Amino acid sequence: MPLNILFAARPERWVIYERPLRDALEKAGIKANLSTDIPAQDVDYIIYAPNSDLQDFTPYSRAKAVLNLWAGVESIVGNETLKIPLARMVDPGLTKGMVEWVTGHVLRYHLGIDSDILRRDAKWEYRTPPLAPERQVVILGLGALGKAVAETLVYLGFSVTGWSRSPKTVDGIDCLHGEDGLKEALSRAEIAVLLLPDTPATQDIISSETLAHMPQGAFIINPGRGPLIDDNALLAALDSGQIAHATLDVFRVEPLPADHPFWADPKVTVTPHIAAETRADTASEVIVDNIRRGEAGEPFINLVDRKLGY
Amino acid sequence: MPLNILFAARPERWVIYERPLRDALEKAGIKANLSTDIPAQDVDYIIYAPNSDLQDFTPYSRAKAVLNLWAGVESIVGNETLKIPLARMVDPGLTKGMVEWVTGHVLRYHLGIDSDILRRDAKWEYRTPPLAPERQVVILGLGALGKAVAETLVYLGFSVTGWSRSPKTVDGIDCLHGEDGLKEALSRAEIAVLLLPDTPATQDIISSETLAHMPQGAFIINPGRGPLIDDNALLAALDSGQIAHATLDVFRVEPLPADHPFWADPKVTVTPHIAAETRADTASEVIVDNIRRGEAGEPFINLVDRKLGY
Repeated sequence: MPLNILFAARPERWVIYERPLRDALEKAGIKANLSTDIPAQDVDYIIYAPNSDLQDFTPYSRAKAVLNLWAGVESIVGNETLKIPLARMVDPGLTKGMVEWVTGHVLRYHLGIDSDILRRDAKWEYRTPPLAPERQVVILGLGALGKAVAETLVYLGFSVTGWSRSPKTVDGIDCLHGEDGLKEALSRAEIAVLLLPDTPATQDIISSETLAHMPQGAFIINPGRGPLIDDNALLAALDSGQIAHATLDVFRVEPLPADHPFWADPKVTVTPHIAAETRADTASEVIVDNIRRGEAGEPFINLVDRKLGY
Repeated sequence: MPLNILFAARPERWVIYERPLRDALEKAGIKANLSTDIPAQDVDYIIYAPNSDLQDFTPYSRAKAVLNLWAGVESIVGNETLKIPLARMVDPGLTKGMVEWVTGHVLRYHLGIDSDILRRDAKWEYRTPPLAPERQVVILGLGALGKAVAETLVYLGFSVTGWSRSPKTVDGIDCLHGEDGLKEALSRAEIAVLLLPDTPATQDIISSETLAHMPQGAFIINPGRGPLIDDNALLAALDSGQIAHATLDVFRVEPLPADHPFWADPKVTVTPHIAAETRADTASEVIVDNIRRGEAGEPFINLVDRKLGY
């Protein structure tokens, strides 16, 4: 009997994902009824976007897993009707895109490219940029994305420090953890990259208190989650010069409202949540691999720890 | 008897190089009289910058080699009074700086960062940037610098094509050569990086004819040499939209004159010859290694082929 696989996401996602998912299912030899409309009690697997209409999982009595289309699960992890395994998306395409985006913005700050782009005065101002080993980059968050970013920055020669809640080890970088580690990490951060998940423990981790630990004139890059930053504290730190510039890809409210002061601040670059885009081809293969695992009795990959929230 | 090593470059270079050179000589166990002022007939080695006052090498009758402080030798290679070996600078620090600068600007174009930096209209314009494998980058020139840049762009996943005058092989990239190869290479170049030496054969290699081979809306990055580009042809191609944007670090006349149209063109980013800065520490070690080789009867490294001009 074919598996009943419900695609529960907004219609525009179905347009993008239907073909790649069917291709991946066929490639894996899985016979399936893949649809956006299946009676709840008949559904075996739920491919899911947190902003879909499906918010009450109670009627999905025989479903074996919820397979998230995105990396972020903060808006579903607290859903008490969800009692089956929840898998995050760890898409190799998304990881590659994130590495490119972060590396581009780290090099942009490292090389001082903005001053060249914005110059309109025909002034030949010679400068010797430091080499990467002389530049301290700090990555907050050492999950799949943080590790991948760290690896590329190390390849380019940067002096990289990583920070995570619990102790971790990543080749070629200095790993710190916990409260004391955070203070030490931020004190080194000429460029800070935020790649933490959004959990109660990480909200407002960039606050007036932690911003004060950073070296004067530091740069902040946030492709992680909007709530990691206390917006008003960052605006004040930019105003005082404590932080020289910030590049923000994620926000508490998206699209970022037109009247939010980030838009008008010349010390802020806003990008429209493009750093971590799930790519349909690679993501479909990850989802189908988890369905194959479920049917073969193998453990699911990328499972969310509901207590930790990611 | 100590070697007489003449430092023939402008005074501001002596300030930078004296200490690193003395350190490198001591480290190598070479006893030397290093000075900016030694009678010509007593000089054993000449550490040289092409813009120094020394232009007539005839009186330096016992000198064994001229060791250039820079990679570019175009203004000395035709000097007929120079009959002893001439070594170019191949500084590992310079190479690293070049790789960082080029990688930063390639990623900047790849990710479309300028539109985010220059935006002032609070408009959330969602876009999915392509991943690096979908981006064709073409490197003209596969010397030490071109190869090092290619290696890093390949590591980042870009589709890289290289072009050189004579056939070359570089791992992970498609290598083309000669006249026909140039046309084919340029036809792929969404982003072209110019890292050719300045020789009669490469002058104006970017002309109205070759620009027409490039895909419409291509980007040009020139950290190589100013005369590689026919300035007026490039300005016309920018004006027509054939070329979307250019980032230029080197020019026929430097500093770039304030009335040069590159300064005012919003489709041109001018950087003040910062892509390839020789770093005194690493460069001093390279120079001293060549002096050691000369004294040990070993062949010099980085010798210039006077016929080819580099």
